Parts: sequence; C-alpha cells; structure tokens
Amino acid sequence: MHYFVTGAAGFIGSNLVDRLVQASHFVIGYDNFSTGQERFLEQACASPNFNLVRGDTLDLPALTAAMRGAEFVFHLAANADVRFGTENPRKDLEQNTIATYNVLEAMRANGIRRIAFSSTGSVYGEAQVIPTPEDAPFPIQTSLYGASKLAGEGLIQAYCEGYGFQGYIFRFVSILGERYTHGHVFDFYKQLRQNPNELRVLGNGQQRKSYLYVQDCIDAILFALEQAQAKGTPERSRRINIFNLGANEYCQVNDSIGWITTCLGIAPRLDYTGGERGWIGDNPFIFLDTAKIRALGWKPKLTIQQGIIRTLEYLQANPWVLESRD
Amino acid sequence: MHYFVTGAAGFIGSNLVDRLVQASHFVIGYDNFSTGQERFLEQACASPNFNLVRGDTLDLPALTAAMRGAEFVFHLAANADVRFGTENPRKDLEQNTIATYNVLEAMRANGIRRIAFSSTGSVYGEAQVIPTPEDAPFPIQTSLYGASKLAGEGLIQAYCEGYGFQGYIFRFVSILGERYTHGHVFDFYKQLRQNPNELRVLGNGQQRKSYLYVQDCIDAILFALEQAQAKGTPERSRRINIFNLGANEYCQVNDSIGWITTCLGIAPRLDYTGGERGWIGDNPFIFLDTAKIRALGWKPKLTIQQGIIRTLEYLQANPWVLESRD
Repeated sequence: MHYFVTGAAGFIGSNLVDRLVQASHFVIGYDNFSTGQERFLEQACASPNFNLVRGDTLDLPALTAAMRGAEFVFHLAANADVRFGTENPRKDLEQNTIATYNVLEAMRANGIRRIAFSSTGSVYGEAQVIPTPEDAPFPIQTSLYGASKLAGEGLIQAYCEGYGFQGYIFRFVSILGERYTHGHVFDFYKQLRQNPNELRVLGNGQQRKSYLYVQDCIDAILFALEQAQAKGTPERSRRINIFNLGANEYCQVNDSIGWITTCLGIAPRLDYTGGERGWIGDNPFIFLDTAKIRALGWKPKLTIQQGIIRTLEYLQANPWVLESRD
Repeated sequence: MHYFVTGAAGFIGSNLVDRLVQASHFVIGYDNFSTGQERFLEQACASPNFNLVRGDTLDLPALTAAMRGAEFVFHLAANADVRFGTENPRKDLEQNTIATYNVLEAMRANGIRRIAFSSTGSVYGEAQVIPTPEDAPFPIQTSLYGASKLAGEGLIQAYCEGYGFQGYIFRFVSILGERYTHGHVFDFYKQLRQNPNELRVLGNGQQRKSYLYVQDCIDAILFALEQAQAKGTPERSRRINIFNLGANEYCQVNDSIGWITTCLGIAPRLDYTGGERGWIGDNPFIFLDTAKIRALGWKPKLTIQQGIIRTLEYLQANPWVLESRD
C-alpha cells in the first residue's frame, strides 16, 4: 500500500511511520515540524520507501500536491495541547478542524477515499456513562480540543456519506511511550529533574484517567484496518468505523506519581493546586469502553503502570526531548 | 435588553427581530444579505429601537465592532441549504463553523457571554432512536450541513466551559411560515406556478419529516430564555441548555403534496426521482422528541398541515420571494 501520514514527525505519527515502513509499505510523511522532531524520523528516512514532505496542513495546495499517488491517509497532525485551548482558541479551530477539512479536500482532489483519523476520548466531554462506549449519549463538549476533534469527526463522516469515502475514527485515551513529548509523565519528570524534592500537581491528584502504550495503540489501528479489509467481517464495507482505544483499566494521578517517584527513588513533597479538575476543561474521570475493538481480537500488551514506566525510561534516556520543548 | 441578531434579514431572523422590537427591546441586526431580504426588515427599520448593520460573519473586526453594547447574541446566520453541501463543502465550513467561532470571539472581545444558537435536527444524522431526544446515542453525521452545525454547537459548549459563557442551543426541524425562502413548499409551489400539471418530487415521496411554524419556533426560543431567567427553574444557571424544537407529529412528503395541491385546486402528475432519500445526505425520517421544552410549558399553536397551508398562502401573496431566488 501507499500511505500518506500527516503529523509524521510527531509522537504517534513517527511510530506509525516506522511500523508501516518496516512492513514494506510506501509512506509519504507530511509535517510542519511545529512540534514534530526530525530525530523521530531518522530510522524512516534511511529507507527508500519513505518520503518526507515538510509542509503545513493549512496549506491546501501543498498538501494536495504532496498527497499525489497515495491510496490511504492517516491524519494524525493536530494541536494536541488540550490544556492550553483557552489561551488561543484559534489554534484548535485551525490545526484540528480546518486542517481536517483540508486533508479531506486534498484527498478528494487526488481521488483518495480512505482515511484513518486520530480522535480523542475528549469528545465525550464529562461522560454520563463510564466506561464510555462509542454510542454513549450525545455529549456536551468541555474543551476546545474536544470540540475541534468532534468537528473533524463530523467532517469525515459527512465526506463518507457525501463522497463515498471510507473512514476510521479512533478515539484515544492519553497515549504513552517512546517519543512522548507532552502530558503528565513529561511534566512530572521535567519538574523532578530540576527539583526532586517537590512536585506541583494540577488538581487534587484524584483525577482518574486511562492511558495506552503507543505500540498497543498502533497495533489496534492496524488491526482494525486489517479486519476491515478481511472478507466477511462486519467492518468490511462499512463507511464509518469508530473505535475507542484505551487500556481496560484506569488509574489515579496519585497512582502514577507513586510509580514514577518509586522508579526514580525519590519522595518529593506534593504540592496540589487543588480541585477536582487540573485545568479548565480537564475531565476528572476518563475511562473508555473498548469492548468493540476487543471483540475483533485486539488487546493491549502493556498495563498502564508498565506504559508509564516505559515512558519514564524513554525520557531518562532521551533528555533532549525535554529540552526541545522548553 | 440589548440584543444582537446575526442573520437578521433572514427567514427566522427577521421574524425574531420583529418580535424583539415589538417587546420594546433594543436590537442590532447583522446580515450580509447573501440570502436575507431588506423587505423582511421594513417593519423593524421603522422603529428607533432597531439598528441594521450590513456585514459578514466572516469579517471578525466588523462583527466585533457591530456587537458593541449588546448583552445577548442570537446567532442565526448560516448557510441553510442542506441539499447542496456536496457541491461546495467550503460553504458549510465557513458560513456555519468558522462564522460561529467568529461570533464567539466577537462576544469575548466585547465581554458578552450569553448566546442562543439555531442548530438543527440534522445533527442527529439518521438517528437510531425516533422520536429523537436531546441525549440520543452519539450520532454519525450524514451531511456537511449537520456536521458544520454540530461543530458550531461544540464550539459554543467549549466557550461555556472555558470562558463562562451561557449557551442556548435549539435543534430545529424544518421551519415553515411567513418569509419562508427555501424548502419543499417553496420548491413545489415554484414548480406548480410554472406548470400546474406536473410536479417533480425528490425521492419516493415517503420521506417522513417534521416541521414547525416559525412563530411557534420563536415562541419556544423566547419561552426557554424566560424560563432560564426565572428563579428556581432547573434551567437557571445552567451553562448549556439544549432543546429540540418541532411539532409533536410528522408527515410524509406525499401528505404535504396532497395538502398543497388540494389548496391550489390542482391535480398534477407526480414525477418521483425515486429512492428513500431525496438527495445525498437526506434523512428519510426526522422526528424529534420535544418532551424537554414541552415540560417547561411550551406547545406549538399550529399543526404541520396548518403551517404548510400558511406558508403556501404567504408565497401566493408574495410572489417576489419566489423570484428573488431565481
């Protein structure tokens, strides 16, 4: 297959690119390097099957030109900083909603009709049903990030109905693992590296969250696509395929702090900012029902605890990642 | 109160403006007259309480300047042509999604925090539960129009959470009545005026749809806002208030054809294009559960049949409306 990957130099994107190239597919990676890292693509760039195009998803002509010849698009490029939405609301609108529209238009111009999209459990807002299934009650958005991803989902769905596209929408919990560049493990380790005696924790530390290790996430995506292409499965020929992706468990922020500090062999004083939510739009309890993807035969290999430790070990071995986001 | 109304020269907008001005409120109307009609605002323009600003919702500086001094925003401006979404997908993105973002940003710049938004039953796609309640299962979008309105809803909800806005989202069925400028009664009457012997019908005529008379729609909106301001009601202080608006009944397109042709005293040959759906993204069965707004005490005064006849009589008395959209 000939794949096109937006956000190819990002955390999940670069891991996906490596997997696709290893499986002997042709891959065009597209990234504006606003948060992506060239070092994440060193391995891919050594392969003749990989082409890197430096470009912005907001530049529709460049995007359209770069996509030529591809058969399938993974649209992973996004503004993924959930926390800072209210500081600059235009960012989510442009980089998530309008960018997704551009990807769809570039596909239409190139006659490409199959797309996989990295959505988020944040589209459920503060879900009334937990664990939250894909067909949970019509949600209320609580973050600009979630709203912008929901808008992207809606666009993809409308293109499937209106233009005969086939869409795969994956609603992720927080993803962890190698090349992780933002999130609570990143923030905590960065703080503890500067001062191992104190840790500032947003909220009361009792927020319950679910996580998934990046290779488990990519396994799930590739598995769902394979199933959809296999004859006789219910996913075959469905226009829209929506899957929650997450571990079958959750932990408290305080659990994670315990695992991280034990691993580092330190006992910092914990300084809680207080409140049920770490920031405006933070969701005090995220836990997705992943029965749908599990029913196809997928399950994660790492527990949340193992994923967090793996992430911490990656950051310890790659301090440049912490410095690249100063 | 000092209201700001986008789409003030439109079908619903101009009727709302008249009601607000009659109730002695101050109103700024904003419209780009792409589909709005100056004649719809003749009555309002005669009042010193009404100010008309010609401008586009895509022009953020003009929108922000026009909004100054307002306390509450009715955001009704939209591309409402559901049928033609796939011919120009950018239109729904710009005029519905980005325009709503601009309205919210203009409000934020002016310190205005209360907004009512005209959404649509189309956000439910092809609903699995009929009649469809506000908390129906998480829907799949089937039209660019629905997707763009859902994106608008999500933005409003995120602004409520992130910036302390209060939002009222009304999901309409098709609205009928005086100043009606598009939809099936418009299309049918226009055809029959040119040739009373033949009527082309999109689909098989068995699509089941619900409608609401425009004054009943405005009653419901104003009623919900009043309730929300009354002490001790559950709506008071809620950040997000979502209401379906529609009649407590539905009809087939064929029923409507019967009422229209009987009223006109003609018996045209019916030429069906066939199929369950009239066009790509058409929903063969729309019927919203309006128990939530009814529980507050509202109910429509006209039946669907009465609304359709009222609309037909309006078009007969105002043939210029038909000509204005040639």
